[in-house]
Amino acid sequence: MSVRPKSRRQVLTDFRRSEILDAALKLFGKKGFAETRMDDVAEKAKVAKGTLYLYFSSKEEIYETAVLQAIEEQRERIQQALEGVTGTANRLRVLLQIRMSFWETQPNVYRMLVTLGRERSHRKQTHTLLQATVRELVGIFEDGVKAGEIPARDFEPIGWAVMDMLRGMNERRLYGEADSTPEQDTAILLALVLPAIGLRTQA
Amino acid sequence: MSVRPKSRRQVLTDFRRSEILDAALKLFGKKGFAETRMDDVAEKAKVAKGTLYLYFSSKEEIYETAVLQAIEEQRERIQQALEGVTGTANRLRVLLQIRMSFWETQPNVYRMLVTLGRERSHRKQTHTLLQATVRELVGIFEDGVKAGEIPARDFEPIGWAVMDMLRGMNERRLYGEADSTPEQDTAILLALVLPAIGLRTQA
Repeated sequence: MSVRPKSRRQVLTDFRRSEILDAALKLFGKKGFAETRMDDVAEKAKVAKGTLYLYFSSKEEIYETAVLQAIEEQRERIQQALEGVTGTANRLRVLLQIRMSFWETQPNVYRMLVTLGRERSHRKQTHTLLQATVRELVGIFEDGVKAGEIPARDFEPIGWAVMDMLRGMNERRLYGEADSTPEQDTAILLALVLPAIGLRTQA
Repeated sequence: MSVRPKSRRQVLTDFRRSEILDAALKLFGKKGFAETRMDDVAEKAKVAKGTLYLYFSSKEEIYETAVLQAIEEQRERIQQALEGVTGTANRLRVLLQIRMSFWETQPNVYRMLVTLGRERSHRKQTHTLLQATVRELVGIFEDGVKAGEIPARDFEPIGWAVMDMLRGMNERRLYGEADSTPEQDTAILLALVLPAIGLRTQA
């Protein structure tokens, strides 16, 4: 987070960008990414097409910006929520619950991640984003080792396994294929992971 | 599996269909599904476009046929491999290993499932396919309960968690994002799941 106050110009730029982003996401969600043209975005955001290109050079750039913004916002929320929380199980619970409930506020971005994010052209970017979360998870496990709570081991595969379950649960919830709540899914995930890292489950 | 011998006509139809399917999958893998036209498929399969339409009415039907055939073949292999195998851990290991190594023989179909299978138009079909595997998994757990190996519980959420991990591991392996083998991934998955269903891990 920047500490320097933003200039009037920067505030206006940010505002315009976020308005365009908003319009684009609505169209992507409704018409699909491939079917949305930059003209449609300009019209929906009520800016001239020339103006649009001052802010985003392509649909791809809009997609990437939306995803990165959401991920960054989530990361900040998790860091804030984790302040003062101790214990591996508690820290893990906080992280999982935010990573689950957050997407309910941004279902369009999540759906884009699920579909576009898996296409060949976005795979590398998606993998990098997932890796960042896996590192957060591994960090929590390693803090548990330092605190003498759990034995040391290679946590990387467990981090990916947690990531996989998290994605699956989020997908089914956001597409209405499961009626569990983020809290219930978090409990199921913790029951699987805590014994695997050598912690008893607190049922 | 049908026991009645196939007619000469049926054999020819099956052969022609599988040739067209093969040609289509190669094109989908190379050009992408959206960019492949039925004309391209006809040309690649060396059949007239009119003939092509005797076998498949649309690209969608080709996609669905390819996916369903692969899934059916996998299911048969698993059933055969499971014959005579006892014990929850062993049965689970057999199922997981086939579900991992099978796709290495059919990477194009798997990549289609990963991308197209998650699009809105295919989600329901994909969810039904996944549900079938979750039921197989739950069946193995429930046999373990009947055999007195593990305590009864609601195995459905664990079945989905296993499915999620399986998909994630397969995706990373088939896209070259992980260098683990199906055997290593199976071991990691079992280490997470067996304690969760009340079985000690046999390390």
